[in-house]
Amino acid sequence: MSITAATGFEASGVSAGIRREGKDLALVRATSPATGAAVWTQNRVLAAPVVVSQAHLEVAQPQAVVVNSGVANAATGVRGELDAIATAAEAARLLSLDVEEVLVLSTGVIGAPLPLDRIRAALPEAADALSPAGGADAAEAILTTDTRSKQAVREGAGFTVGGMAKGSGMIHPNLATMLAVVTTDYPLEPGEAIELLRPAVDGSFNSITVDGDCSTNDAVVLLASGSAHVDRTSDRDAAFAQALAEVCSDLAGQIVADGEGATIVAEITVTGGASSAEARAIAQRIATSPLVKTALFGRDANWGRVLMAAGSAPHNGGYAHVDATRVSLTYNGTPVLVAGVPQNTEPPVDGARCSIELDLGLGDASASYLTTDLSYDYVRINADYRS
Amino acid sequence: MSITAATGFEASGVSAGIRREGKDLALVRATSPATGAAVWTQNRVLAAPVVVSQAHLEVAQPQAVVVNSGVANAATGVRGELDAIATAAEAARLLSLDVEEVLVLSTGVIGAPLPLDRIRAALPEAADALSPAGGADAAEAILTTDTRSKQAVREGAGFTVGGMAKGSGMIHPNLATMLAVVTTDYPLEPGEAIELLRPAVDGSFNSITVDGDCSTNDAVVLLASGSAHVDRTSDRDAAFAQALAEVCSDLAGQIVADGEGATIVAEITVTGGASSAEARAIAQRIATSPLVKTALFGRDANWGRVLMAAGSAPHNGGYAHVDATRVSLTYNGTPVLVAGVPQNTEPPVDGARCSIELDLGLGDASASYLTTDLSYDYVRINADYRS
Repeated sequence: MSITAATGFEASGVSAGIRREGKDLALVRATSPATGAAVWTQNRVLAAPVVVSQAHLEVAQPQAVVVNSGVANAATGVRGELDAIATAAEAARLLSLDVEEVLVLSTGVIGAPLPLDRIRAALPEAADALSPAGGADAAEAILTTDTRSKQAVREGAGFTVGGMAKGSGMIHPNLATMLAVVTTDYPLEPGEAIELLRPAVDGSFNSITVDGDCSTNDAVVLLASGSAHVDRTSDRDAAFAQALAEVCSDLAGQIVADGEGATIVAEITVTGGASSAEARAIAQRIATSPLVKTALFGRDANWGRVLMAAGSAPHNGGYAHVDATRVSLTYNGTPVLVAGVPQNTEPPVDGARCSIELDLGLGDASASYLTTDLSYDYVRINADYRS
Repeated sequence: MSITAATGFEASGVSAGIRREGKDLALVRATSPATGAAVWTQNRVLAAPVVVSQAHLEVAQPQAVVVNSGVANAATGVRGELDAIATAAEAARLLSLDVEEVLVLSTGVIGAPLPLDRIRAALPEAADALSPAGGADAAEAILTTDTRSKQAVREGAGFTVGGMAKGSGMIHPNLATMLAVVTTDYPLEPGEAIELLRPAVDGSFNSITVDGDCSTNDAVVLLASGSAHVDRTSDRDAAFAQALAEVCSDLAGQIVADGEGATIVAEITVTGGASSAEARAIAQRIATSPLVKTALFGRDANWGRVLMAAGSAPHNGGYAHVDATRVSLTYNGTPVLVAGVPQNTEPPVDGARCSIELDLGLGDASASYLTTDLSYDYVRINADYRS
């Protein structure tokens, strides 16, 4: 299922021996000419496959994606870019595509060279294994230290959107970090995919955090085969945008729930913001605060920390606008602060979900963020990876 | 002897019963008319004592400082401000000062009301106990969950600078967070103190991080008695600025070393930046990255994480300028990356100090930051405070 749920796609996942064991090389291709787009990490240190794939997207529509796990091919200099190009070239040869029609994604250790010989040796097997039934194998091959594979599908009126993702385990030095591939048989003209993908990513993958770190390799790729052969109407276009957003949100939620050491998922909702950018900055600041996250691990409605984080959200070289006398805050629906006045309540925080709603009382802008707690296991996983 | 090392100051520390046990109320006063200034938290949610003290500084030179620990008097609404004013008024009455000549600082739980009755009851005892020998008592009374008191003194040519600080323990809901009071007998004109204090704070208290959180109560106060009676020369002015910077850096270093759960202190130095603001943003981003900090706890020269953090340092709505092909990185003097090329070295990271030097290779700007690791104990302290 997943990336092969939409018609017009085949996928496979094989073992190339990059990681010590298991599948580590995934291949996805459109069986007839597709359109596509990608949203990339904003990190200033770009992994080689990101540099190469960005260049390919400037001159061609993507028809296939090669993903390897185990090595990120980041901080690898010119050699890394040559390795990424060679990977794309070999896949292109096997699939009878132009090299620019192939995107390459890598996830794994930063600073280690890509084992190009192993990848080239395994690509023919991956090409032979391509099948409409290969989605699950591909979804498995892109994992690093994830504890489970991440797939999502939405069916629309005559079309399908499916996707796979990995993230965000980093037991190795730095398994750079979040990758997702989404496919659809909805017909999209060249240039349309990016306009639809950006808002879907903003509301999903760009609104989650495990530790606030942004990797060198993050990528979300959308491929549209057009093989659903439905007529485009504005209603159906809206339904497609909705389905795309839902698949992205579903995958993003799976990433957070599988976050390193996570014992609880918290949804931070900020309303009443002076502007969208400020509401978002505040939601992100709360979602990434170590003090908020350790309190979640302790299952404590420690609202002073939420307020402190809200008041120090970076925005335009200063801090986002907060007026302490207008702020209201609820935990799981229980008010703890109303227009700046403490309510002396002790809302229970338990189970695996928590909802924190902050109303700034300044305007109409809102934003939300999914985050996890900061647990002993997060520290163990990221400190003790050699053991 | 901390804040009473300079001539012209008395201090005391008494138990007012705000915390369950120990000293929790400190008083510092100049024995003859002093000048002074303060640098405050940039958090948008200001604690009541910060609001009141800022107003006092606008109309008068500070002659005394009252500090209580146990309750932060933050998120306490109008009542909190009235409580802060009442505290200053009682101290002013006891010391025969104008209320505006008294600054009030609080540190402790956010959202709890100030126990004004206990503070008013204890202030006469604190005033009676004022003494040139009271610096250590005052330094003890401002602590919250610090494991040791923090004092520093520098002697100049005919003058002295001394200080006390607290931070950054947060075992209670939010012990808001860092306070410092610095005194000197160097003669400063009104208005001069702030110009000298700001750069000293930028290079010290504003260049440390334990968890990247910025509290509602952070404050650094400087009082200058002028009682050294030395002549001002440009050389001596420079020596004073240097002594002030050293006292601030000394206290800031003590705060980091006593950081929650800290097992190692790391100095992050960024050179070759395109601008000072960008070098500083990058140093701060590295110093606050959970992945960098957990690697330090694991005593691992995990340089891929440093590079990833450097590449995602927020600056001007985007990220600070980094060119991966120009970056060089050393751990404890051992190069791991030279002009973008990995060196395949494994520098040892052990003991209680670590030096990480990142040369961006872009310009002449530099910045440095002190940080700690992220340990199991950090999580325990901040998650399990109710136990």
